[in-house]
Amino acid sequence: MGPSRSPDASPSSPSAAVPTFDAMLASYRDLVTPAIIASIPDREPKKHLYALVAEHLARSGKGFRPALCIATCRAFGGRAENAVPSAAAIELLHNAFLVHDDVEDGSEYRRDRPTLHKQHGVPLAVNTGDAMNAMAIRVLKANLALVGPARAWRVLEEFDHMSLETIEGQAMELGWIRDNDCDTTEEDYLLMVLKKTCWYSFIHPCRIGALVAGHEPNDLESLNRYGHTLGTAFQIQDDILNLTGSRTMYGKEIGGDIFEGKRTLMLAHLLRTSGAQDKARLKAFLGKPRERRLPREVAWVFERLAARGSIDHARQVARGFVAKALAEFDATFGSLPRGPDVDFLRALVDAVMNRST
Amino acid sequence: MGPSRSPDASPSSPSAAVPTFDAMLASYRDLVTPAIIASIPDREPKKHLYALVAEHLARSGKGFRPALCIATCRAFGGRAENAVPSAAAIELLHNAFLVHDDVEDGSEYRRDRPTLHKQHGVPLAVNTGDAMNAMAIRVLKANLALVGPARAWRVLEEFDHMSLETIEGQAMELGWIRDNDCDTTEEDYLLMVLKKTCWYSFIHPCRIGALVAGHEPNDLESLNRYGHTLGTAFQIQDDILNLTGSRTMYGKEIGGDIFEGKRTLMLAHLLRTSGAQDKARLKAFLGKPRERRLPREVAWVFERLAARGSIDHARQVARGFVAKALAEFDATFGSLPRGPDVDFLRALVDAVMNRST
Repeated sequence: MGPSRSPDASPSSPSAAVPTFDAMLASYRDLVTPAIIASIPDREPKKHLYALVAEHLARSGKGFRPALCIATCRAFGGRAENAVPSAAAIELLHNAFLVHDDVEDGSEYRRDRPTLHKQHGVPLAVNTGDAMNAMAIRVLKANLALVGPARAWRVLEEFDHMSLETIEGQAMELGWIRDNDCDTTEEDYLLMVLKKTCWYSFIHPCRIGALVAGHEPNDLESLNRYGHTLGTAFQIQDDILNLTGSRTMYGKEIGGDIFEGKRTLMLAHLLRTSGAQDKARLKAFLGKPRERRLPREVAWVFERLAARGSIDHARQVARGFVAKALAEFDATFGSLPRGPDVDFLRALVDAVMNRST
Repeated sequence: MGPSRSPDASPSSPSAAVPTFDAMLASYRDLVTPAIIASIPDREPKKHLYALVAEHLARSGKGFRPALCIATCRAFGGRAENAVPSAAAIELLHNAFLVHDDVEDGSEYRRDRPTLHKQHGVPLAVNTGDAMNAMAIRVLKANLALVGPARAWRVLEEFDHMSLETIEGQAMELGWIRDNDCDTTEEDYLLMVLKKTCWYSFIHPCRIGALVAGHEPNDLESLNRYGHTLGTAFQIQDDILNLTGSRTMYGKEIGGDIFEGKRTLMLAHLLRTSGAQDKARLKAFLGKPRERRLPREVAWVFERLAARGSIDHARQVARGFVAKALAEFDATFGSLPRGPDVDFLRALVDAVMNRST
């Protein structure tokens, strides 16, 4: 956690040199991290609750979500301070989801370390996720003083929608796995991604940033389109990295999605384009409990995804969403005065595809 | 779900005959149930989310918590309608906790049916609990129109405190079990009960009822004492029923707490008063994973609890809290005009001890 920045060193100061994308991301993180740390209650029970919260939050991610919130707030002429509590709450909610998702998906690695439930057991992990969720609501109380009770409620409504959409997307995904649904189409996948990824990771961070900047609540539709297209590109790329990344860079087990039987765009493509024999073999593999899926079977699925062009297909679809996101960026932010924050929102579109982590 | 009541049929109408405690409880439930049902989104995904939510909510409990909220609101001169959204949200939050607690405790029965995770698996159960938690926040939005944004935020703060206290109490209990802590004292137990039971089941329902009735936020301390003493008596009695009740009446597996290794007042008493040999045997039993605890070992623990007077001791402690709760009732509600709601809050103290379910 860095020292607090003086106004002159702020990345939106016109006198500063043009900051790189990574430097901007770090500067947003520096604004939000103290608020996140401060949200952890300094009291018992530590060993079985708040130490776990702190441990999970310290596995800091890249901080895309709070960055989007603050950048959008400043792009619309708002002050970063007004966005900080909301950005911190978004990151807390994100961590709450991660912990529960890892339990629900049976994931073993997160940010290159064993998942919280692998380290501390499912009971404490579920409870710790609940705590971070409650902490997010608590942090939002600061909005009362910053933007007044009526607008603070509007922000809370965004959180409420964010939570329920994410939970619905997760239910879709878990349901497909539980029922071994092998007819999931690419359209089904894209709806799940809108619900599970786009709303909470992209659309709402932008909307909330605009709201605390004083933007009209009824005038947020174009942010939905920017966040939707960008988030979809992000998730497809995330699925590709799960297959092709290196674990040290990516932080999760490589091929973990295949082990978990996740319905990705690639798997939907493979199921759609495979002959009867391969399809039956895929269905049998996906119908097994996770712990009975063998590494050589996972390797076979990977080989099929590559050979059938499913990975290339996903790359192409992702690039299509990137092109749309660029157009939405122009429509939404193109007429605003340029500056480091608007530049960041533009650069994020490329970063989503070009990342290796 | 009954039809909505006309004002004349309202239990607080002075012209009505004196209603029984059970009739009052049913009348509060009739006010709140429609709001709970209406909170379930009528959209997909149903099979893997909202059908599970509906299924869990339909296993309706006795409805003590919403009843406390509405009764306190009316006792302080407020209108029941103003308390209904908050009471519904309390019941949703309660159900969210139940589902996660059952996962965390490895419980097998709830309200005489298999727990949600036993029926649908841990992943969907954890996600369904998250949904009911988010739905609770959504329902509270109605307070904006009923009591204005500032007081609606005060109610939300009560919810926030309610959640985090409950989560802290659960962390204490899970931590004792995970670490096989055999030095848990009766004082530790009572602190855990304050956190895990009293705040969310008794204190906050009363405080929120008073708040929506227009009571001063700074004048709620005596409600804390009423809820604390009543809630402690309730939980000790709950633990006793877990050992001595009949499953059909009580709805959970009898002796389940011993299987789960729960640290109760009775177990703390037994550990404190046992000789070295029994204590070592108890410690060895509690140190095993749940699935390796044998029914004959559970029977032995039960026999020791009875023989050592641990159950009688717990009954006596519970009776002490009932006496305190009656004194707190007099201090808090004694000077208010009598009526069915005030009578209900008085009768609840006896009902907590005299129940068999």
